[in-house]
Amino acid sequence: MTGPRLTPLATALPDAVPFVGPETQERAQGRAFRARLGANESRFGPSPRAVAAMAAAATEAWMYGDPEMHDLRAAIAAHHGVTPAHVMVGEGIDGLLGTLVRLIAGPGDAVVTSFGAYPTFNFHVAGFGADLHRVPYRDDREDPEALLAKAREVGAKLVYLANPDNPMGSWHAAATVEAMLPALPEGALLVLDEAYIDLAPEGTAPRIAPDDPRVIRLRTFSKGYGLAGLRVGYALAAPDLIRAFDRVRNHFGMGRMAQAGALAALADQDHLRHVRAQVSAARDRITAIAAANGLAALPSATNFVAVDCGRDGRFARAVLQGCLARGLFIRMPGLAPLDRCIRISAGTPADLDVLEEVLPQALAAAGG
Amino acid sequence: MTGPRLTPLATALPDAVPFVGPETQERAQGRAFRARLGANESRFGPSPRAVAAMAAAATEAWMYGDPEMHDLRAAIAAHHGVTPAHVMVGEGIDGLLGTLVRLIAGPGDAVVTSFGAYPTFNFHVAGFGADLHRVPYRDDREDPEALLAKAREVGAKLVYLANPDNPMGSWHAAATVEAMLPALPEGALLVLDEAYIDLAPEGTAPRIAPDDPRVIRLRTFSKGYGLAGLRVGYALAAPDLIRAFDRVRNHFGMGRMAQAGALAALADQDHLRHVRAQVSAARDRITAIAAANGLAALPSATNFVAVDCGRDGRFARAVLQGCLARGLFIRMPGLAPLDRCIRISAGTPADLDVLEEVLPQALAAAGG
Repeated sequence: MTGPRLTPLATALPDAVPFVGPETQERAQGRAFRARLGANESRFGPSPRAVAAMAAAATEAWMYGDPEMHDLRAAIAAHHGVTPAHVMVGEGIDGLLGTLVRLIAGPGDAVVTSFGAYPTFNFHVAGFGADLHRVPYRDDREDPEALLAKAREVGAKLVYLANPDNPMGSWHAAATVEAMLPALPEGALLVLDEAYIDLAPEGTAPRIAPDDPRVIRLRTFSKGYGLAGLRVGYALAAPDLIRAFDRVRNHFGMGRMAQAGALAALADQDHLRHVRAQVSAARDRITAIAAANGLAALPSATNFVAVDCGRDGRFARAVLQGCLARGLFIRMPGLAPLDRCIRISAGTPADLDVLEEVLPQALAAAGG
Repeated sequence: MTGPRLTPLATALPDAVPFVGPETQERAQGRAFRARLGANESRFGPSPRAVAAMAAAATEAWMYGDPEMHDLRAAIAAHHGVTPAHVMVGEGIDGLLGTLVRLIAGPGDAVVTSFGAYPTFNFHVAGFGADLHRVPYRDDREDPEALLAKAREVGAKLVYLANPDNPMGSWHAAATVEAMLPALPEGALLVLDEAYIDLAPEGTAPRIAPDDPRVIRLRTFSKGYGLAGLRVGYALAAPDLIRAFDRVRNHFGMGRMAQAGALAALADQDHLRHVRAQVSAARDRITAIAAANGLAALPSATNFVAVDCGRDGRFARAVLQGCLARGLFIRMPGLAPLDRCIRISAGTPADLDVLEEVLPQALAAAGG
């Protein structure tokens, strides 16, 4: 009696996962974290209007959500000045990235990203059997020239760029991203992950014609809108590509509360402005705490700050472990040279009090 | 300037979707349905405890859900007398079916199901490029002998059986399903879709050893538990297969409200008993309304009833259209000979008043 026969691809995939959740660490430690600043969630919460909309929708949870997500797509389209045919909604940017990779990149296809960039994208590329090519960051930013050169060299079907970047918090000006499009090799798609764009300086988002077939933009309600636990992201792209999602996506995957919550969140731009102000203040305080400990914080256009621990990855990992052991959940980049940094999400004043208390202890324990 | 290059498989897929949502029809008609009895949602709603849990979780929606879904998997495991390593939670049975097909069936692989069985399974099989083989229903039930014979003939990697069945509402005794396992060809996996098992007669669920590698059972909170709009399903299978899901799934795909709502729903078995009683009464009334119109309702172990319109698919489709046009959302099987029936979900007394009013009008308009 034998088990099922996985595909050769599924058989060969590693059991590694992109991220371990803080709850797993809490269970291992036997206690809750004092401050949760590792997953770039929004400690300033969602709009109260979104909370009310979700609570109201809970009573209607017996109904499937609209599989066309008509109202939400229409609102997103209006917000961006495009049509609903330019918008796809999915289970977070993670879910949309999975569907996108599935549609475009399979065995033998080349995909380009940066060493140390978003690992969940790499997870999907591996999961569909495509070949991942990586170029280094340059001055702690993803390097458009290197990405383009590699894309031309390998004939990439997908080129991933996060702007602003995770895990470093760095960013490129709109004009830099705009200049990438004509430089892409023929038939390559720029996967522009704008998860953090709501926290970036005004004008960071490039101006791209809605029908431009060379780029897909990915946005989320998980960061600025504070709805990571709702799982709603969206893609903006030319209608041909958006329509292709319908061929494979989980059509009833977006539930009723997810659609209602995202719709209400989008309508409350005042709340987003409030969050931006809070995030800005938190970035400043993280920078000040880092400086008080002799560390340099990198400039950030996101809701987190990468703090350079001043030595190698081994030292930064020791600092990270010291923070975790003292009840502060943070994360850090996975690869050198980025891994000389720890990454701290914008927190409330009480969260950052924990950082202020714990960071010097963790540095001392690491021999800093 | 060209667009992205879809994979050959994605290029070849049709734009057809498994189901059109009632909202799409409402927008086309310019008005809401009077009764929503087409998607086998639970008109008796979720547990009030689940609603309260979701509303409470809404305030925590800034946090990602636990990617291991620890508490929910532990509760499901306890409910079924297995370990959490036997349980995977996903975005509805639809989402789990997609991941399962992806793990096992690709180009050149054979999959077996029944003509007219759940179309979303077929959608995923096509979407991953596997070959779908179908056998007829027998006496309005899926036919285990024919499924097994076809599986042996084609060397199937997956064999789909819904018990109870959708769209006919029929079912097999536990012993029949249990007897299928030793008759499966070596290396075939029985995909046992038990979406409606919570509404079936006691004892319908087969007894299967938790570590049996020949079967995966799929359950959902969408039907008996009344949480279709939450998108939570789960799989029960041997740990090796469950672990394989981790290699490709959207790890943060289950949000915080989804996990909290499902956990509370599972804990409220009294509500499920209440729903079972309401569903049973509704089935009886649908049967009586059918009889009053000279139609035979099929026996049902689900929260819907297939009503035989007594002629061919063309006639049943006309009856269906007549119901839709009169504000009653119902659906019907897609293929002959099943498509002589219309399919009506269990409704509240007010919903079934609409059925009682509309059905004779629709029959008359169809020339019945």
